[in-house]
Amino acid sequence: MTDEQERTSAEPVRVGVLGARGRMGIEVCKAVDAADDLELVAMVDQGDGLFAASDAGAEVVVDFTTPDVVMDNLHWCIDQGINAVVGTTGFTEQRLDRVRGWLARKPGVGVVIAPNFGIGAVLMMQFAARAARHFESVEIIEQHHPRKLDAPSGTATHTARQIARARAEAGLGPVPDATRDEVPGARGAEIDGVRVHAVRATGLVAHQEVLFGTTGETLTIRHDSYDRASFMPGVLLAVRAVRNRPGLTVGLDTLLD
Amino acid sequence: MTDEQERTSAEPVRVGVLGARGRMGIEVCKAVDAADDLELVAMVDQGDGLFAASDAGAEVVVDFTTPDVVMDNLHWCIDQGINAVVGTTGFTEQRLDRVRGWLARKPGVGVVIAPNFGIGAVLMMQFAARAARHFESVEIIEQHHPRKLDAPSGTATHTARQIARARAEAGLGPVPDATRDEVPGARGAEIDGVRVHAVRATGLVAHQEVLFGTTGETLTIRHDSYDRASFMPGVLLAVRAVRNRPGLTVGLDTLLD
Amino acid sequence: MTDEQERTSAEPVRVGVLGARGRMGIEVCKAVDAADDLELVAMVDQGDGLFAASDAGAEVVVDFTTPDVVMDNLHWCIDQGINAVVGTTGFTEQRLDRVRGWLARKPGVGVVIAPNFGIGAVLMMQFAARAARHFESVEIIEQHHPRKLDAPSGTATHTARQIARARAEAGLGPVPDATRDEVPGARGAEIDGVRVHAVRATGLVAHQEVLFGTTGETLTIRHDSYDRASFMPGVLLAVRAVRNRPGLTVGLDTLLD
Amino acid sequence: MTDEQERTSAEPVRVGVLGARGRMGIEVCKAVDAADDLELVAMVDQGDGLFAASDAGAEVVVDFTTPDVVMDNLHWCIDQGINAVVGTTGFTEQRLDRVRGWLARKPGVGVVIAPNFGIGAVLMMQFAARAARHFESVEIIEQHHPRKLDAPSGTATHTARQIARARAEAGLGPVPDATRDEVPGARGAEIDGVRVHAVRATGLVAHQEVLFGTTGETLTIRHDSYDRASFMPGVLLAVRAVRNRPGLTVGLDTLLD
Repeated sequence: MTDEQERTSAEPVRVGVLGARGRMGIEVCKAVDAADDLELVAMVDQGDGLFAASDAGAEVVVDFTTPDVVMDNLHWCIDQGINAVVGTTGFTEQRLDRVRGWLARKPGVGVVIAPNFGIGAVLMMQFAARAARHFESVEIIEQHHPRKLDAPSGTATHTARQIARARAEAGLGPVPDATRDEVPGARGAEIDGVRVHAVRATGLVAHQEVLFGTTGETLTIRHDSYDRASFMPGVLLAVRAVRNRPGLTVGLDTLLD
Repeated sequence: MTDEQERTSAEPVRVGVLGARGRMGIEVCKAVDAADDLELVAMVDQGDGLFAASDAGAEVVVDFTTPDVVMDNLHWCIDQGINAVVGTTGFTEQRLDRVRGWLARKPGVGVVIAPNFGIGAVLMMQFAARAARHFESVEIIEQHHPRKLDAPSGTATHTARQIARARAEAGLGPVPDATRDEVPGARGAEIDGVRVHAVRATGLVAHQEVLFGTTGETLTIRHDSYDRASFMPGVLLAVRAVRNRPGLTVGLDTLLD
Repeated sequence: MTDEQERTSAEPVRVGVLGARGRMGIEVCKAVDAADDLELVAMVDQGDGLFAASDAGAEVVVDFTTPDVVMDNLHWCIDQGINAVVGTTGFTEQRLDRVRGWLARKPGVGVVIAPNFGIGAVLMMQFAARAARHFESVEIIEQHHPRKLDAPSGTATHTARQIARARAEAGLGPVPDATRDEVPGARGAEIDGVRVHAVRATGLVAHQEVLFGTTGETLTIRHDSYDRASFMPGVLLAVRAVRNRPGLTVGLDTLLD
Repeated sequence: MTDEQERTSAEPVRVGVLGARGRMGIEVCKAVDAADDLELVAMVDQGDGLFAASDAGAEVVVDFTTPDVVMDNLHWCIDQGINAVVGTTGFTEQRLDRVRGWLARKPGVGVVIAPNFGIGAVLMMQFAARAARHFESVEIIEQHHPRKLDAPSGTATHTARQIARARAEAGLGPVPDATRDEVPGARGAEIDGVRVHAVRATGLVAHQEVLFGTTGETLTIRHDSYDRASFMPGVLLAVRAVRNRPGLTVGLDTLLD
């Protein structure tokens, strides 16, 4: 427990949850409830009024709702001076700009919007981007359950793009590859010059490995996600940090520094 | 050291090496020389006469030569009553039949011909074939240095075929896969219905992973080969076994039982 | 789906579950219910009479109860001519002998008693025992959640003992190890001469890796268990097989052949 | 190839090697020789005079010698205004202070002294230290060939210490561990509260895995070193950077930023 957490534990942060009966919302309520330094003061879902959160004195609201209501929710929070942590998807640059506009008029309020609250996944991508310019070879192998519709995963595609950008900045050329005789698909998909392999098997949950290679050595960064609860440490991290971060923060990255 | 090895160590097996100055031949000579229960009595290469081996009293000859001379070498060994262990490539069914014909006339002589002397690789394939009928999902990921010309590797293709056959025998249908939206190549190459992914990176040597999955669990069999010396335990195993195995033995499999 | 399964699917096997409201029993009921070739005809738990199973025409009974009632349950099943698949723990050699005695008087009835229904775990141990005599080095690394009380796990200890026996039979001496300067515990626990390392970390479920090494290569067999459902394919395998296996079968091993 | 490398490739950096006939020195000579932007101008070993390097116009000297001569070599280089990259071991704080003293009188000269030139190993340690404060669990598994005398390895011990420091700074308490019944050694060695497991097996070279865990997810950072050549990219990185880094730089870390 950090110094900051200990200090505030005398007076827990009051937290409201929007989308409290959804899959993620239920997990957030459980996690907030279990944390000594946080207090769950409002559980709001479809049909409930947002004022349940302000009436209960929520200092931070966590929003795992849907793209069609999240903008109204956020506008209302900022108006009320309530900080917000948002895991709802569908944020375009245009939407982010509107949020920035609302925040400009409420300088004390903080909003954290993150597409991925998995601390492990975010660190994996950070480390991959950082390692990228030191290795001439790199490939990504992601592994998921066989009910997944897209291949490769969004996280793998995002990782590949970040690696490609880091390589370009470091002046690295193409990855060495002498393959001349390939059964189609063997060498994977190419995302901005980075090879990505998608494995699908019953029993798997969500896993990703980034393999870097240079003369005589390899460095592998692997993330294994076993269940939805894996997002909770990231959500709690944001809940604890958002009151000290006025304005808009996009992504968990800066909160991890 | 096994009982058998200890017993025979009093009187080491006399071994000749054909192709003794080739890459593999050099390793074989070193390995035979280092083994207490074997004695290196002849090193034969291009330009030397085969009779150097028989004159030296070789009981077993190891042949790592080339497809164009190996049949003559074998014919000569069998005629001389010398057992042979052969790692030279290029054996078709027709060639194997000719060897069987020569052996039929020399009932005491044994010949072991193996495409792969890596004990680890052979066991990996055996285990994979055995596990195949108990798991609804299976995929292969092979990883090699980037100078390799073919993708996937011959070992991966061979493993996929053995798995496919075992699945068919067990009445298993296709591997489950809901992928609808694929960047071309992401899901790998398809070999007899088994997905195979080929990773290439500087620093890697030769590695293969077979991943099996069923409800709630996965089983992974992984083989890592670090250098050419990895074939030597298999060669020595064959050298020790061949005198007790008259006739033709193809592959290391049966010697491992 | 195998030929046998297809044939019997016209007439599903009638299955009763004892301990139906326990953690494992609930999973068994779900799994039987979901299988096309099986029919769940009785769910029996504490307070219910066993005759609910025979009245419902159960051909196979699955028992996940407790050591204090399982012997009575089994005696009753055998008397009734109902085949049984037993996952309840606590079977000593003495208890197994009593079961054999009961079965001797009912030659048509089959009983399968298994300490572990995870197909992956059972295959891992089989493969490990088989590989053991071909590699001079071997170590086990098991990884579990940090709430586990014992280290190493029962499965790891059992695997180590099987490996040690296989090494002894092959005449292998001690594993090579030049360690002279060791921080206590670094080299793990020694179980019959095999080093076993127990890793504990939040986020992990139940995992085990057996690493074999010889000159220039390693072979790794890894099992990952993600949830309790992983035992169900093994339970169903036994349910399908037990009617054709009169007498007592201990362990899943022979059913996998 | 980076912009900087391309620019300087018109006029290669002139490099001398001290300890040129040692194991590492031979590799350095090969690596310098193979790099387009570097020129090997002097190979100096025991019995040769150091002035061979200055006479040949060396701008950078690489020193892989022994602790008893390295201080004299460095003093001479700094006096001559030649930059130095040093992989020789045995540098205490006292020795580093003496080097700093010599450099104070030669403000344009740069010296890089690194205990480990493996880029992968250095990044692994950096990433581990950075991830440490975000995960409640962490363990280290290092794997080496069985001829190694110490367990755990120096790199593993160093990594554990860095992780322990990062955890302390973040206010994290002890790693959760409910183990009550342990076969001695199963839970590994304890280095500053971090559990470290040392695996030894024939076939392995030098490998290390750092496993982090939190609710529902794990993050693994793994480094595999296959041969001595793996240090060369780090040596060349230092050779290219040292002329622009006057004063003393200890460790490869800052050069990787």
